[in-house]
Amino acid sequence: MAGAVQDNMTEGFMSGLAHYVGDDNVIVAPDVRASYETDWTRRWHGRCIAVVRPADAAQASEVLQMCGDRGVRIVPQGGNTGLVGGATPRGSAPQIVLSSARLTKIGDVDRGAGQVTVGAGVTVAALQRTARTCGFEAGLDLGARDTATVGGVAACDAGGLQAMRYGTARRRIVGLEAVLADGTIVRRLAGLPKDNAGYNVPALLVGSEGTLGFITQVRWSCVSRKEARVVVLIAVESVSEAVAMATSLRWGVPSVEMIELLTETGIRLLGDRLSAPLPVPPAPAWVLVECADSVDPSERLIEVLSDLGVGERSAFAVDASSRRRLLRLREALPELITQDGISHKLDVGVPLDSLSAFYDELRQLVRERSPSHRLIVFGHLGDGNVHVNILGPDPDDEAVDAAVFELVAEHGGTISAEHGVGVLKARFLPLVRSAGELRMMRLIKQALDPASILNPNVVLEEE
Amino acid sequence: MAGAVQDNMTEGFMSGLAHYVGDDNVIVAPDVRASYETDWTRRWHGRCIAVVRPADAAQASEVLQMCGDRGVRIVPQGGNTGLVGGATPRGSAPQIVLSSARLTKIGDVDRGAGQVTVGAGVTVAALQRTARTCGFEAGLDLGARDTATVGGVAACDAGGLQAMRYGTARRRIVGLEAVLADGTIVRRLAGLPKDNAGYNVPALLVGSEGTLGFITQVRWSCVSRKEARVVVLIAVESVSEAVAMATSLRWGVPSVEMIELLTETGIRLLGDRLSAPLPVPPAPAWVLVECADSVDPSERLIEVLSDLGVGERSAFAVDASSRRRLLRLREALPELITQDGISHKLDVGVPLDSLSAFYDELRQLVRERSPSHRLIVFGHLGDGNVHVNILGPDPDDEAVDAAVFELVAEHGGTISAEHGVGVLKARFLPLVRSAGELRMMRLIKQALDPASILNPNVVLEEE
Repeated sequence: MAGAVQDNMTEGFMSGLAHYVGDDNVIVAPDVRASYETDWTRRWHGRCIAVVRPADAAQASEVLQMCGDRGVRIVPQGGNTGLVGGATPRGSAPQIVLSSARLTKIGDVDRGAGQVTVGAGVTVAALQRTARTCGFEAGLDLGARDTATVGGVAACDAGGLQAMRYGTARRRIVGLEAVLADGTIVRRLAGLPKDNAGYNVPALLVGSEGTLGFITQVRWSCVSRKEARVVVLIAVESVSEAVAMATSLRWGVPSVEMIELLTETGIRLLGDRLSAPLPVPPAPAWVLVECADSVDPSERLIEVLSDLGVGERSAFAVDASSRRRLLRLREALPELITQDGISHKLDVGVPLDSLSAFYDELRQLVRERSPSHRLIVFGHLGDGNVHVNILGPDPDDEAVDAAVFELVAEHGGTISAEHGVGVLKARFLPLVRSAGELRMMRLIKQALDPASILNPNVVLEEE
Repeated sequence: MAGAVQDNMTEGFMSGLAHYVGDDNVIVAPDVRASYETDWTRRWHGRCIAVVRPADAAQASEVLQMCGDRGVRIVPQGGNTGLVGGATPRGSAPQIVLSSARLTKIGDVDRGAGQVTVGAGVTVAALQRTARTCGFEAGLDLGARDTATVGGVAACDAGGLQAMRYGTARRRIVGLEAVLADGTIVRRLAGLPKDNAGYNVPALLVGSEGTLGFITQVRWSCVSRKEARVVVLIAVESVSEAVAMATSLRWGVPSVEMIELLTETGIRLLGDRLSAPLPVPPAPAWVLVECADSVDPSERLIEVLSDLGVGERSAFAVDASSRRRLLRLREALPELITQDGISHKLDVGVPLDSLSAFYDELRQLVRERSPSHRLIVFGHLGDGNVHVNILGPDPDDEAVDAAVFELVAEHGGTISAEHGVGVLKARFLPLVRSAGELRMMRLIKQALDPASILNPNVVLEEE
């Protein structure tokens, strides 16, 4: 009987949802739901009672109010490319996945301002194409570009490859529209470069990982298009030398867009697995640099590299296919690691002047835990953001993650540079955020979502 | 008797404050207090029971807790250069001015990151000097640089002259320390370029005008120093032509740092009052451009200006004294206006493609209100941020302000581009912020300061 009551309630709830978003957009069929219930790493999965796909903020607002009335939890989801379990169902309480799949409208590019308003479900690649068509660039790029959405990028304050020049998503987002837990719609889409009329509501929602609001639209600020590009790969003797080089390049070469780091074990993996010969000798570290400008940026780059004594240790690429060949080395690495097993992927950041010491201590830490563990470190050197990959420990063994995070904290770093906190890192947050900051975060969460129906247990663990 | 009880309470409160910050830093003498109780425009003034000057966040925390216990309100104050009444005492409730005057510590510049941590009471000019000494620039400049503090700049998300290139304060601030109403200290000073571990607490505090927290330290991100500079002043036929020129320059000349607008009545004022002849003919509008780069930026600038058909209508300055002469024209304008009376100074922004229409309608609006009113518009063309000055109406006549703000709202603009909302504009906020945004702001304010002791009636009017 209780079951029947439950079913009647569910039925009424479902038909209520369908009333607002249409029958086709309340997905209950288990086989269709499945792709929303498991993330692409297959590490995170759970069950939802429905996947709901609103067409706009007004529909999302109705859905959130209905969920609030019934105590149904909401898991916002974009491209489902997250790595920290922040966008998949979890726990046993009734929950829906609120998908941005239909929020794919792309507005006209304002060519004077270099801005465009796009739906949260637009992919990063589609945003990049739109920007390019109008003579701009998006100013943000990441490996998951074809699937990751602008809404997800906003919710996580994603960074990626060009953040050292153009900032993380936070800098590119000059307005947004979102729906709060109680259905309130907040909208600021004018994209004014200077606007301090009241609290910067968009700035708080960016990076809140769907726990404070469901983002429905984003106003994006593009950057000017730069046609002349050059890529250089340099073998160096140590991470310490790589850091010094990154600093010289950052301040000495204004056209630098990307400075990536590869280290010994990753370089060896590339040498072992790739068919083509390596363009520079294996070394303790490689630095991969891309410059872009309206005119050829080579001259200044070569000047600075010469001062640093970089000669035969480097490979220089100007034409598109040579550039791609060098860039491919960095892009191939995550795939090669995946082929060797399920690695612990930790996305951490430390102040640049601590990076070398952190790297040495990290190697020692992994060695001491087990001689059979393999550590592969690479990442965004220009931001002090490295991806720590550890092959060997059981995927569910959190002790190794904890040890790395503690090391990061000792160096004044962050346990999340760009992937977000999600579920994975919520319990480690106190390592890098003071009690005062955590208190402030909780007060904000409680104020905006007192029943904690929006993405519960993401970022902040329920007490 | 009630008075005596009141006095005893006050006495205990004062000695409690002195216990934490020292006798010399609880200022009660009316003549010394006076300079904190009145702002520099003399429009805003009120009475406080004491001016309290903590030496650090820990002291500020004790002061805030004491005030919370006694229901004493707090008005944070930096350089007291605000224009909107956000930093002076108001109303009759017991209140203190919490001054950043002793928070003047300047940390070591991290040369790799280009960052420095400074106390909230450090002036913008001192920050600029520190940055320059180490080969950087602050990347923010404004007229009040010698008095305005970094804490005030942070609290208001100030913009200024270089915002089109380097962003407003929000972009330059990569961390901060603040004390919330209940004494909680929040601190994030590592300045990591990528760090999305939890909500971006600093991003919410920046621009909250002292209503959510008292900022005690700021981590500032400098920009690279650019030695080669050029300034050009161009006479144009209309604001519409000025806007088109600004757009071409912004996207065509990467070294552009500043694009300022002067308009007819302001140009006439300069012609009438300055002794030196004007460097270009009087015109409906002037555009003043500054470029800066590590190498001479003239070539590209001249190329773009030639394409725009700018020839004899312009004055070009490369050496420092000629540049200063041109820049002085723009800087002299506010002073000349002040000489003519107390003007209504409204700091508004509109989307750039609406600026010309807004300007025309604004002129008509002022003309229609009274033929004797004088309108002088100038400002930061590159950001669509103009300073509207109206001479003639009584300083307390809010009707003219309201009419201008309504016009701004019709054009999708903001009633506050850089001065902040303060007390002056709180009641106009609903013109440009939706009910949803205002609701979210109130929820945040209530959560962080339930008794509303921190700068009450600033930004949000008490209900």
